[in-house]
Amino acid sequence: MAAAQLQFHWIPPALLFLMLRPPLGHSVIHSVPFQNPQDCTKKQFFDISRMACRPCGANQQTSPDGTSCICQPGYKLISNNGGPFIRCEKCPVTSPAVTQDGWSCIRCPSGAMIDHQGKCRCSVGHIKMERSINGAPLTVAQCELCNASKPSFSMPDPSAKLCIRCHNTFIKTTKSCDCKSSILTGGLCFLAQPKALTTSVATNIIYAKNLKVISAWFISHLKASAIACLRFANLTACQALGNMCVMTMNSLNIATPPNDACGLYQTIFKKTVHLGIVNSINSWRKTLPWLYYIGHVDGVPLRILRQEPFPTAFHFKPYEHMKLQFVIAKYDARGHFLHWEKVTGGTLQLCPDTMTKLNIAYIFGITYQQQCTLSVSTLLSKYRDIEFYDMYMLYIGENGEEQLHPIAVRNLNLQYNGKFVNQAKTENSWYLTRRFFLVDTLTGREVHLNSQPKVIRVAKDIKIRVNLVPKTLQGNIFPPFLTISYANIKIQNPEEQTIPVSFSIEYEMDLTTAHQNTEIALGFLSGVSTINSVLKTTSWKRRIGSQMIDIPTILKFLLFYAGDLANTFFVVTFGTGFYWLTFFKGQQIVSVLLPTSSQEMYFISCVVSAFALKFLQLLHKLGIQLTVDIFFIDWERPKGKIVKSIVRGGDIKTAPAPVSIWRTYFVANEWNNIQTIRKINPIFQIVVVIFILEVVGFANLTSMNPYSQLKRTAESDVVPSSYILRFGMASTVWLTVGIIQVVFCASIYERFVEDRISQFIDICSISNISVMIFSHRCFGYYIHGRSVHGHADTNMEEMNLNLKREAENLCGQRGLVPNTEIETFQIFVTKKIREQYDKIREPIHWSNKFIQPMNNPEDAFVRRMKAYNTTNKFLSSFIDHAIRDMDYIVQDKLLLERLIDMELHEPTDKTIFYNDQHLAFTDILYYGNESTLLIFDTLFFCVVDLAAKNFILAAFLTYIQQKVIQFIRVAVGRKNVAAKTLVDERFLL
Amino acid sequence: MAAAQLQFHWIPPALLFLMLRPPLGHSVIHSVPFQNPQDCTKKQFFDISRMACRPCGANQQTSPDGTSCICQPGYKLISNNGGPFIRCEKCPVTSPAVTQDGWSCIRCPSGAMIDHQGKCRCSVGHIKMERSINGAPLTVAQCELCNASKPSFSMPDPSAKLCIRCHNTFIKTTKSCDCKSSILTGGLCFLAQPKALTTSVATNIIYAKNLKVISAWFISHLKASAIACLRFANLTACQALGNMCVMTMNSLNIATPPNDACGLYQTIFKKTVHLGIVNSINSWRKTLPWLYYIGHVDGVPLRILRQEPFPTAFHFKPYEHMKLQFVIAKYDARGHFLHWEKVTGGTLQLCPDTMTKLNIAYIFGITYQQQCTLSVSTLLSKYRDIEFYDMYMLYIGENGEEQLHPIAVRNLNLQYNGKFVNQAKTENSWYLTRRFFLVDTLTGREVHLNSQPKVIRVAKDIKIRVNLVPKTLQGNIFPPFLTISYANIKIQNPEEQTIPVSFSIEYEMDLTTAHQNTEIALGFLSGVSTINSVLKTTSWKRRIGSQMIDIPTILKFLLFYAGDLANTFFVVTFGTGFYWLTFFKGQQIVSVLLPTSSQEMYFISCVVSAFALKFLQLLHKLGIQLTVDIFFIDWERPKGKIVKSIVRGGDIKTAPAPVSIWRTYFVANEWNNIQTIRKINPIFQIVVVIFILEVVGFANLTSMNPYSQLKRTAESDVVPSSYILRFGMASTVWLTVGIIQVVFCASIYERFVEDRISQFIDICSISNISVMIFSHRCFGYYIHGRSVHGHADTNMEEMNLNLKREAENLCGQRGLVPNTEIETFQIFVTKKIREQYDKIREPIHWSNKFIQPMNNPEDAFVRRMKAYNTTNKFLSSFIDHAIRDMDYIVQDKLLLERLIDMELHEPTDKTIFYNDQHLAFTDILYYGNESTLLIFDTLFFCVVDLAAKNFILAAFLTYIQQKVIQFIRVAVGRKNVAAKTLVDERFLL
Repeated sequence: MAAAQLQFHWIPPALLFLMLRPPLGHSVIHSVPFQNPQDCTKKQFFDISRMACRPCGANQQTSPDGTSCICQPGYKLISNNGGPFIRCEKCPVTSPAVTQDGWSCIRCPSGAMIDHQGKCRCSVGHIKMERSINGAPLTVAQCELCNASKPSFSMPDPSAKLCIRCHNTFIKTTKSCDCKSSILTGGLCFLAQPKALTTSVATNIIYAKNLKVISAWFISHLKASAIACLRFANLTACQALGNMCVMTMNSLNIATPPNDACGLYQTIFKKTVHLGIVNSINSWRKTLPWLYYIGHVDGVPLRILRQEPFPTAFHFKPYEHMKLQFVIAKYDARGHFLHWEKVTGGTLQLCPDTMTKLNIAYIFGITYQQQCTLSVSTLLSKYRDIEFYDMYMLYIGENGEEQLHPIAVRNLNLQYNGKFVNQAKTENSWYLTRRFFLVDTLTGREVHLNSQPKVIRVAKDIKIRVNLVPKTLQGNIFPPFLTISYANIKIQNPEEQTIPVSFSIEYEMDLTTAHQNTEIALGFLSGVSTINSVLKTTSWKRRIGSQMIDIPTILKFLLFYAGDLANTFFVVTFGTGFYWLTFFKGQQIVSVLLPTSSQEMYFISCVVSAFALKFLQLLHKLGIQLTVDIFFIDWERPKGKIVKSIVRGGDIKTAPAPVSIWRTYFVANEWNNIQTIRKINPIFQIVVVIFILEVVGFANLTSMNPYSQLKRTAESDVVPSSYILRFGMASTVWLTVGIIQVVFCASIYERFVEDRISQFIDICSISNISVMIFSHRCFGYYIHGRSVHGHADTNMEEMNLNLKREAENLCGQRGLVPNTEIETFQIFVTKKIREQYDKIREPIHWSNKFIQPMNNPEDAFVRRMKAYNTTNKFLSSFIDHAIRDMDYIVQDKLLLERLIDMELHEPTDKTIFYNDQHLAFTDILYYGNESTLLIFDTLFFCVVDLAAKNFILAAFLTYIQQKVIQFIRVAVGRKNVAAKTLVDERFLL
Repeated sequence: MAAAQLQFHWIPPALLFLMLRPPLGHSVIHSVPFQNPQDCTKKQFFDISRMACRPCGANQQTSPDGTSCICQPGYKLISNNGGPFIRCEKCPVTSPAVTQDGWSCIRCPSGAMIDHQGKCRCSVGHIKMERSINGAPLTVAQCELCNASKPSFSMPDPSAKLCIRCHNTFIKTTKSCDCKSSILTGGLCFLAQPKALTTSVATNIIYAKNLKVISAWFISHLKASAIACLRFANLTACQALGNMCVMTMNSLNIATPPNDACGLYQTIFKKTVHLGIVNSINSWRKTLPWLYYIGHVDGVPLRILRQEPFPTAFHFKPYEHMKLQFVIAKYDARGHFLHWEKVTGGTLQLCPDTMTKLNIAYIFGITYQQQCTLSVSTLLSKYRDIEFYDMYMLYIGENGEEQLHPIAVRNLNLQYNGKFVNQAKTENSWYLTRRFFLVDTLTGREVHLNSQPKVIRVAKDIKIRVNLVPKTLQGNIFPPFLTISYANIKIQNPEEQTIPVSFSIEYEMDLTTAHQNTEIALGFLSGVSTINSVLKTTSWKRRIGSQMIDIPTILKFLLFYAGDLANTFFVVTFGTGFYWLTFFKGQQIVSVLLPTSSQEMYFISCVVSAFALKFLQLLHKLGIQLTVDIFFIDWERPKGKIVKSIVRGGDIKTAPAPVSIWRTYFVANEWNNIQTIRKINPIFQIVVVIFILEVVGFANLTSMNPYSQLKRTAESDVVPSSYILRFGMASTVWLTVGIIQVVFCASIYERFVEDRISQFIDICSISNISVMIFSHRCFGYYIHGRSVHGHADTNMEEMNLNLKREAENLCGQRGLVPNTEIETFQIFVTKKIREQYDKIREPIHWSNKFIQPMNNPEDAFVRRMKAYNTTNKFLSSFIDHAIRDMDYIVQDKLLLERLIDMELHEPTDKTIFYNDQHLAFTDILYYGNESTLLIFDTLFFCVVDLAAKNFILAAFLTYIQQKVIQFIRVAVGRKNVAAKTLVDERFLL
């Protein structure tokens, strides 16, 4: 039957809607006016279906929630289906009041009046009856007095419908439900004031000098809690008293009477000695909450914080993060224990964020910093109820049971005798406490407990510090402690007021030993440097052929010393950085923690010193390179004489065939081109380093997080990066890439692709040109380039033939000494030769001076050309052993000589040519100074990064730096070559 | 008196603690065992002061909250101070039960029994009295039956202490508080089943094929709500019914009887036509919640979503972000309207995050994506109560009043006749709804409303899409709509179950016009390219001296076309990218929105095509450059004859003095060095681009955010970056830096620092060597290098004198034509000359071929040398006009010729030398192809970035690419020069 009925009535809804479908083209959806239930008038209700205010019916008014109508006072309901429409009817004059349920009219008894809701109201202590016990309605309501005396002890319940037993304190104190002659406070009744406590209590909360509040909460609860706690050992009352002490920042003042919350707490603590203590903790009275660590006594904080390690050993394992397991016991303001809560996510962190990020805070070993700005209105709505926390750290005891270690709180706002003792830096003067709260919106309410607070207190900065036990190898830490700083905010315009809050976790270890080790290393290496610098200076003195110790000598020593000291600092800082990087990131059982930012300052100053000294060394080296004396010796002799004319009579006038200068140009140009060749490609270096750091993600290893992760994760925002790790990572990557490049350059590139230095030597040989370089007055280098074919200044046919013959080993070897192949030498010339050389070359330098002693430039030009030719002749004669009193010998350097880079024998009679198969002449090029350049670049990169915490910027500036120095080196170097060899700059491309 | 008392008792607390201070050296703090209130036994309570379980006293047991003790059943309280200790006493046998307040003993009346708590329990319908009305305790409790009939209509209240009026539906239906003969459902009493509704309702919720739940909520509320809604128009009942329909995903099935929530809703909707509609919205019945947009009819969704623009115009202003002001009306499951709420922060976003980040979602114009994985246990605890949302968008109407525009919901899980109609792509088949929820933990409860749900439903993906009105310039949008996809999670192990959720806001505009414009531009430019390519091919054909259109011609055409097409694509994509960048970021009144990721595909394919074609063009150009024919013409003639020997008789045997080849080496080396000189420094380019993008922060402008901000902010995580903006930004920065470099190079660097190309020409002149280059068979370039001094192969003295003379303008001009200065020419030679040239040079190419037709290599070498000398002689004679039938004329190119890069006259008789002051010969170097290289680099950089979304990686790969191509160019180019000019590779350094 039901089915049939159903089919009959039922039309597919879509069809129905189709029928209702409006003509196309008209707007389908109209807008809806925005009306709030609060916007409706008193005669309207908010229709939750139509979202609009609609008028109530006759004799009706809005219900308290605004979404329906109720009858006006004096009208009873006669119909109500829960729909929008009810019906009301006026009560007759005989029974003018309405019953509580609203459906009937009733007469009030004599003595009761009709209130503004149209209902009867009985006087205090009475209950109202509108029905008889079995539910039958009465025509006249009854007001019944509850019997307050024994044995009834009754009073009306809150709804005033039943008489119930009154509070036990009344009965106990007065044997009645009346407290008239005794002390009534906080809804409790006490017989008399306990002698131990002050009669008046301080309910005046002083937040700051001009910020006082008479706290409604303290008025109603402080005295009652104190008495109930002391007299009845009422646990919640004791907790409530303790909470009020915490709300006043645990501040104590021994000079004033103890009538504030903490004073009362201390008084009760003292008065209940007989109750004993809990858990062997002297300051934890059995009935009272534990608020303070043993008194404000020197030495106690240190004993609490540093005496015994926390029982759990910590370790870092890649996929199993060990946590700091904090647990808090939560209490409400009235002293009720709410529950235990494990500290995770936002328990202590006021800033909202993703759970993952918030939880990172409690992974052991990760330095954590979070801050944000909160709106005061959010705080007011979110923290309407204050909660108190007792914080512990959880661990598994020896017996396998869970144990708690209490966490001390250092409240920076605590005043002891008016002094902020916890703001002192020395731990010994602190006064550690236990309980804390995050936001207090309760104390500041003045008139009523539900009113808007006048002032709120917010835990602005919370910091948990974990100290590592010194020299631990088992991952032991001292118990962490909490530092809290509160801010008082006077509520004025909560929507616009904001407060910055922060939460951080810091790990610290005692670095005294590390500092000592660093200093020992620095001291030792500085000593070695000094010796090295003295040796270098001595060598320099010998090479410039001087013996006196004069001011230039001291300056030179200082310059050498700067370089050696720079290396010392670099070795130590690099070692330190690398040590932290590997040990901190690599440790499984915790044994080292990163230095905190204040501890890092020493390290940073070392790095900056290293950089500054290295820069000095680089300038020094550049200065030497840019002032070397160089000369290209052309071995080519005219091939013969050119017939100029045949004089009458058969005499032939001839002139020597000119030797082409173009080979010298070619060699000079090539020399110019190899000035800034390096063993590494500096651009490739920068690009690869940035690739490794930023693309592969090694930069992410610099965060203060013991776990190694290359990927950038959300945590990066809250885990700061460490300067030491940045330096360690940057220098390691830079040096590694650099060294790989050097090795690659030496073993593969130069062997299989091209070797510019060898090519240069080769070109010298082919072009029949030798190179003589004086880096010091009496010391220098010689590249022997005499062609094995005798002539090089010839046409292509002959050149190609020569090359071919050499390739087929059909000619002699190229070495200076016959039948050797060694073409490069270090030379240590006698002073005599040098004097002769200087004398010959004097005119060459004239043009560079402003004062020209000669008469006209033409003449100068001629003399310079002449000087050039003379030099060429002099040097080639010298090499050819053609000058009798200026001969030379060729020998190998001793191992010791090579090690200390100093010649043991000074040339007195004969110049010494040392065989040099290691291309020592590259010392006056970039090529031979790769280590200095590489370390300088490393330091430059790191220093910029330390200043800006930005690897890309560091790379950019390193590039600019390299280009600028290279540009100067090339430009000035070219001028120097042009000046010394007389090759026009136009040929040095 | 009080003060005296006070001072007497009071000892400073610190002193007190001092007395209690333990001997130093002992541990100060002991650990606390961790005990939970739940761990205590039934005879223990949890002492909130000591944090430990402690035993209750005799006859006591734990209270329900576990923190205190209560008396065992049958025992009454005799003392309770709120402290840990209470005292209990057994009730006498005469009154064995305990009163409700626990302080007294009482006897139960006959018919009442003592329950397990030791209290009297009356039977159903009775109230219990333990005191008389005025509070006097009774010795025997009374059970009183509430009178259910008229006029009392009473039943016991929930505490069973008073008789109160029963629910109006009972009275109305049965005139009593008994519903026996009628329908009792959901606590309401109905007379009979309404005919319109089905008798049985579906309480079986089918989540998926094998996932069904018999919902406790539906059992108790579905039928009652439907009847109350239909019969009494009870607003909350109607809302509750609507909510149940929403809980079943608004699914409708016109094939089955309407006994599910939505079917009942539709039936009631139909039955209440007489009530009319609200706000002129046809599907909004006055009493019912508005759930559906007008039926499931084609065209309706489009009309709803696209017909009328939203009334507010949107704009972007830098410091005043305009917001999408959504407002929701919140209802609870029972149908009560809770309140209006403005949508901010986490209202719709399940993922927790900082408020700033969450609020970014509602700033107009910012594409927003947020996702995370939530634990099911968190959802269960946080969303214990389901809430229903009706979403609106707020705006200010014309009359200045706040108006709401309803937001349509596209629920992807909605089934219409068993089909998921909303999962279709075409808007027309959608069935839009209104109300939605985020997490439903209610429907899935099977047995009891408080039990753990078996299944929960979570709004897994929420997407708000905003469509811009096409061609708007006033910032008009269509009303946004919401797309929701729900996931059903079967609860098995909530602690470990997780669900990924996402929330996003998308902005879309109709890009048809933009696409059309792009295609028009592409088409037009492709046409132009075709013409250009045809011209180029023609020019090429003339230059190679061929007329036939053969396969190589077509290939060549295709290669030219690739290059032109690449430029076309680049221009269009660059234009598009730049357009979006400037218009999207620069607009104040909203007129364009970024393409969504699906719309971007077309653009990306254009970029990739441009890159591929450009690469082809580059290869083509490299191919041409690497195969040019080049020859260095040495003008030097022997200075005279060298006296070889004087034969007897005065006859002098002479030989011509050989001309040194070193000038040629010098020039060849220099030529080799300028092969890959560019107008920009490619490294500097990369470094500066990365600096601008990553350090200055222009990369942050690529996020889909209309506000321009260079600093990286927290929002970057949730605002994705757009491919088009990335391309636009990258290409703009790259091209800008490149163009600035080119301008700097041309205007400053080359003028004041060095100009390698001019230096090369200069060196040619100084060294008396000309360069002849054939890029095509009959076309090429000529650099005239004949020394004005006649000789260059001389010593330094003469060279320096020559240079000096030239500097002082003491000699002639360098030009080919006397008294001109033009040294560079394009040449278009006759075929005759080319044939002659080829014939002469034939032996030169032999060595490069494997098949040597000659007998021995010696012979080949001699013949190659001879060929070299012959070529030199031939070419110098030719330039000297010394070959009669191979003369040439010098002329300027016509403007048209220069524009289309094609010669109008073919040389038939005389070769033509075109004056070339613009260094056209650099076309066969990198230098002359800067635009191709720059665009190729730009495209390479952008393509890598589009693939990896990483500018640094793109820069790295661009660097590698440049190095690789440059290496190939240099190595192969050197081999080519060596092969063509016979200069040994060893001189090309």
